[in-house]
Amino acid sequence: MEVSEAQSSEDMKEKRQQGATLWFTGLPCSGKSTIADLVAKRLKEMGLRVERLDGDIVRKSLTRDLGFSKEDRDLNIERVTFVAKLLSRNGVFVLTSFISPYANKRNHARQETTNFIEIYIKCSVEECIKRDVKGMYKKAIAGEIEEFTGISDPYEEPENPELVLDTEHETAAQNTEKVIKYLRDHKFFKDQNL
Amino acid sequence: MEVSEAQSSEDMKEKRQQGATLWFTGLPCSGKSTIADLVAKRLKEMGLRVERLDGDIVRKSLTRDLGFSKEDRDLNIERVTFVAKLLSRNGVFVLTSFISPYANKRNHARQETTNFIEIYIKCSVEECIKRDVKGMYKKAIAGEIEEFTGISDPYEEPENPELVLDTEHETAAQNTEKVIKYLRDHKFFKDQNL
Repeated sequence: MEVSEAQSSEDMKEKRQQGATLWFTGLPCSGKSTIADLVAKRLKEMGLRVERLDGDIVRKSLTRDLGFSKEDRDLNIERVTFVAKLLSRNGVFVLTSFISPYANKRNHARQETTNFIEIYIKCSVEECIKRDVKGMYKKAIAGEIEEFTGISDPYEEPENPELVLDTEHETAAQNTEKVIKYLRDHKFFKDQNL
Repeated sequence: MEVSEAQSSEDMKEKRQQGATLWFTGLPCSGKSTIADLVAKRLKEMGLRVERLDGDIVRKSLTRDLGFSKEDRDLNIERVTFVAKLLSRNGVFVLTSFISPYANKRNHARQETTNFIEIYIKCSVEECIKRDVKGMYKKAIAGEIEEFTGISDPYEEPENPELVLDTEHETAAQNTEKVIKYLRDHKFFKDQNL
């Protein structure tokens, strides 16, 4: 039995789908979740294993003890990185959408996870303010929210992201297609001949 | 292209390996990690996707803010449950080894995760004390550690665990074999014909 198990093991490894970490980063209201959701939907339709990690999901179970101070947001990103690491090395496409404003935290995620793809969701602060239905920017400008990225806390632009998606001048559908094209060009779908 | 992607998707789902959550629970020093490590090794040799979650691993990245109070240990188990949920529903065999003394927390994990298998590592307190190289039981008996499971805090025995492994009267190798047999009997290896 030991021998047949080992043989099966070799066969399996050949067929294994590789996972990836699609790390969407950008200003509040830049459109990270919208595109990540659309990409996730496409990947699921292809039969791939997909997990979305965003603030709403993660803060319910993984980080509900955390607030929004710089320290807490760092800790939040650290836990997300750990979960993305475990999932991506097990063949799952993990799509994270967090502001993740600090380059060093994103670089840590790059080192820890499998096939890290940094996707910079680019949008001007002016346009983000226009889209802000919750009025968070307004509160930040009025000083009612402290350490708000883009207003009172810096957003460190990615220096060498794998993808830059301009959500100000291109549609969500166009940007979704760019992500799918990137994955196809980089042979992430080779096992399914997609 | 859409059509061929959908077809591939159907093909893939057929071949998918199902995951499981092997939840090892028991008193401190009862032998949870020893057996979980041995089972994990066997499953890896079979070419399956495997993750081990134990205190040492998890407290480094996921829960390093937490102490050992009842509340903190509950929160620890809650986060482990979340990670086990994401992994097990994506075809990974997750092996957790935590004292997890409270039935309600274990039942929550049972509800949240895929193919939850509760494995009660049974060993008398007397025998656990003999094995305790770190002297934790001694400290607990002396009142130097508060809320220590088995001494000053209750361990709620599983009522209907999928497996009971007696580490006092059976060897680690025998108990490991029992877990593998359980998984084989319950068709967890069917995709590999193991």
